[in-house]
Amino acid sequence: MDTYVASSSREHWIRTDGPVTLIGEKINPTGRKRLAQALRDRDLGYVRQLARQQAAAGADLLDVNVGVPDVDDVALLPEVVREVAAEVDLPLCIDSANPAALAAALPVAPGKPLVNSVNGKKASLESILPLVKDRGAAVIGLTMDEDGIPGTPEARVAIAERIAERAVQIGIPLEDVVIDPLVLTVGADDQAGRVTLRTIELVRERLGVNVNLGATNISFGLPERHVINQAFLALSIRAGASCVITDVASLGLSIRAVELLLGRDEYAGRYLSLYRLQQKIRA
Amino acid sequence: MDTYVASSSREHWIRTDGPVTLIGEKINPTGRKRLAQALRDRDLGYVRQLARQQAAAGADLLDVNVGVPDVDDVALLPEVVREVAAEVDLPLCIDSANPAALAAALPVAPGKPLVNSVNGKKASLESILPLVKDRGAAVIGLTMDEDGIPGTPEARVAIAERIAERAVQIGIPLEDVVIDPLVLTVGADDQAGRVTLRTIELVRERLGVNVNLGATNISFGLPERHVINQAFLALSIRAGASCVITDVASLGLSIRAVELLLGRDEYAGRYLSLYRLQQKIRA
Repeated sequence: MDTYVASSSREHWIRTDGPVTLIGEKINPTGRKRLAQALRDRDLGYVRQLARQQAAAGADLLDVNVGVPDVDDVALLPEVVREVAAEVDLPLCIDSANPAALAAALPVAPGKPLVNSVNGKKASLESILPLVKDRGAAVIGLTMDEDGIPGTPEARVAIAERIAERAVQIGIPLEDVVIDPLVLTVGADDQAGRVTLRTIELVRERLGVNVNLGATNISFGLPERHVINQAFLALSIRAGASCVITDVASLGLSIRAVELLLGRDEYAGRYLSLYRLQQKIRA
Repeated sequence: MDTYVASSSREHWIRTDGPVTLIGEKINPTGRKRLAQALRDRDLGYVRQLARQQAAAGADLLDVNVGVPDVDDVALLPEVVREVAAEVDLPLCIDSANPAALAAALPVAPGKPLVNSVNGKKASLESILPLVKDRGAAVIGLTMDEDGIPGTPEARVAIAERIAERAVQIGIPLEDVVIDPLVLTVGADDQAGRVTLRTIELVRERLGVNVNLGATNISFGLPERHVINQAFLALSIRAGASCVITDVASLGLSIRAVELLLGRDEYAGRYLSLYRLQQKIRA
């Protein structure tokens, strides 16, 4: 199944058959002090720099999140979206849980954006999905609801099914729904990885839609996080994830390696071309 | 299924249910000039150092290979085995394709060693398996024969079955046969990873025995080999590999990470204890 997204002149398909779509994660102030300060100061030069760097490193889409405490995201999100779109010609993933901020930003996003995200809560479904529908966007659905993030794959898939059903009911095509099975840290729960991996498999089996992953939470609180993140990417892609929000410069090549090892990269072409691209940047 | 091995006083089980057994790869002169020279000079101090380092890094077994051109391995292999056994109390993996060298080394190996390796060639089966049987050792069987390494998983498994059948016929218990599905580089054949991964799954399904992997060949000739090696370890363990011959200091933690992510490491205990062990060495 293919999810079509676009910038003003660039088209991209997130495909369940791969190659895995790389969404650059860096325009998100959570845990990034310098970006948080830049957003507070409306210093959008730094945002533009992050956009350029990620595009150069091989990102297919860029996530745009302006969630800083005490900052008016309804005003700031469209401003930053405009800025990023002016800087790089990549489809955008508009990242906010605030319907008002999304309502303000979606009209200024070029092409066909991806909305990150809706979840299974009644309030989220009712406020976010109509915005997605009206804009003709695609949307990421998180497998959580009023009761939190379920502890079993089956219960997470049930939420995914509810989100997909509701989206289709109001006229969003099923292929425009991308499910994110959510990742908790194995530092707190040693079954967290297994549960997410099994959720990916079940979503692919039952809904057939694209699966997105924000993979780096998995290692929170543990040492040598990079080692865990790389292993989790491999296992997730094997399970069926087709879209990853990640640090493309540091983990993109790992993703291409997994596809090569699964027999999905003829003559290692994509692995080598991402390697050469990233070498050029370093030089 | 459990494969029992032992040193003079230490017992170890390679278990299909895990945790994955870590075999230190470093006492092997292929591609290691300093070790090759040390073996030529009978400078066994360096061999002892490699043994100590790998034991300290968390190896469960040590591979011992003395294959240097123009060196009499029939004399050298038992000498090195004795030296390593005197230095560290770990079960050994006696690594040679030369039946005469194995015949000389097996009697001096303590406990119950693992022999690396037999393969599907008639000459190999007829010369190696009786040595394994007489010594009461375990053995690694490589999925290759007179026609080389087959290009399909099915043909590799057929060789594995032939090796296992022949071993059992002469009185080696099935659990003492560990199959190595062989790894070619994805740099030369973009289906090489997929074929090995599928072979692992089929060996586990059909024979149920432990599967060993010498994982680092996979990336030969490609840049950023470490990235490919780590991803391949993750996929191999997910497919059913339970034993890896590897650089324990650099890849051991990746292996523990995969087990944690698959829900096989309670409270992340093994991951954290290997991390602490390796931190201590660095400090």
